[in-house]
Amino acid sequence: MRGKFITFEGPEGSGKTSVIIGVEKYLTEEGFSILTTREPGGIKIAEDIRSIILHKDNIEMDAHAEALLFAASRSQHYHEKIVPALKDNKIILCDRFIDSSLAYQGHARELGIDEVYEINKFAIGDSLPELTLFIDVPPKVGLERVFSNIRKIDRLDLETLQFHEKVYEGYMIIAKKYSDRFKIVDGTQPIEKVIEDAIKIIKNIL
Amino acid sequence: MRGKFITFEGPEGSGKTSVIIGVEKYLTEEGFSILTTREPGGIKIAEDIRSIILHKDNIEMDAHAEALLFAASRSQHYHEKIVPALKDNKIILCDRFIDSSLAYQGHARELGIDEVYEINKFAIGDSLPELTLFIDVPPKVGLERVFSNIRKIDRLDLETLQFHEKVYEGYMIIAKKYSDRFKIVDGTQPIEKVIEDAIKIIKNIL
Repeated sequence: MRGKFITFEGPEGSGKTSVIIGVEKYLTEEGFSILTTREPGGIKIAEDIRSIILHKDNIEMDAHAEALLFAASRSQHYHEKIVPALKDNKIILCDRFIDSSLAYQGHARELGIDEVYEINKFAIGDSLPELTLFIDVPPKVGLERVFSNIRKIDRLDLETLQFHEKVYEGYMIIAKKYSDRFKIVDGTQPIEKVIEDAIKIIKNIL
Repeated sequence: MRGKFITFEGPEGSGKTSVIIGVEKYLTEEGFSILTTREPGGIKIAEDIRSIILHKDNIEMDAHAEALLFAASRSQHYHEKIVPALKDNKIILCDRFIDSSLAYQGHARELGIDEVYEINKFAIGDSLPELTLFIDVPPKVGLERVFSNIRKIDRLDLETLQFHEKVYEGYMIIAKKYSDRFKIVDGTQPIEKVIEDAIKIIKNIL
């Protein structure tokens, strides 16, 4: 495999989608062949799995079953879309991947980061991303961005905030555990500067 | 939990379904409260997952994704149906469970018995069956039973036979690994005798 597999992580409202668009534009102009994707990535089996996870009738879903479904969907998306693109010498920019499961389900939902890592390792083997960019904004700032067009954060959102603080805490644990590939970009800067910082880090592996 | 969780395993055509019916009849007459089940066990989420596994359009399914889907379906069936029955003091007779995944996917499909065990451990915790009855018939005998009303085994069935020999080999590895709970019943005897032997073993844990 000659391509590069790069993932983007961050709290809600971190702006990672805008960062990916900016990075894609730059790398394309530089002559690289890019695939941007996110799970389930238009892969039918992965879409089918996702529809079970999200179906409103499935509120009784066991947390472990949910984590296994995410891993199954990831496995299919990875093998059917990402692996062929890697063989095709592409740079893959993927919006969320294994670290989201580790942070959200492993840490915030308390299933255990190592336990969730193990089932994901089963799903994708040792094929971790070569580089993961964490767009770092405090959860409160991220949520305020998400809700900014609607209203100020209220009591119910505060419960959400506590959950997202825990997700953030999970990401910080992951950052230490996988410091080789997990790089932090200050997401509170103007978006142009965030994209510039992201590109600088990516260039190191090209 | 005060109930008992008993699973039945065996090659195709081992007659385990008839054995379960016989055991259920006997235990019910003895005054025990019984739940007979098999995955997906009428659990909606598990049925939805199963329909993805079996859907004819999903021939591109990655073997690891498939194993994760089986584990997800098992987790939901276990937590939603088996755990409440155990709390309700029932004896659960379950047609196939974790060992089928270990033998079929772990060994015969070569994903690794220990690897498949790990994702199933994630799914159901340390809640292994208290007793597993393996209805032992040579795979060739089992397949001949399955096909007996149609025709003799042909070249294509032989490929099937090789696969089922490997499944059987997997079961024999599991029998050694989990000898505490995994008990073998000679399934080549007349069905009444097979049921009698099964009941004898079950009585030891009641």
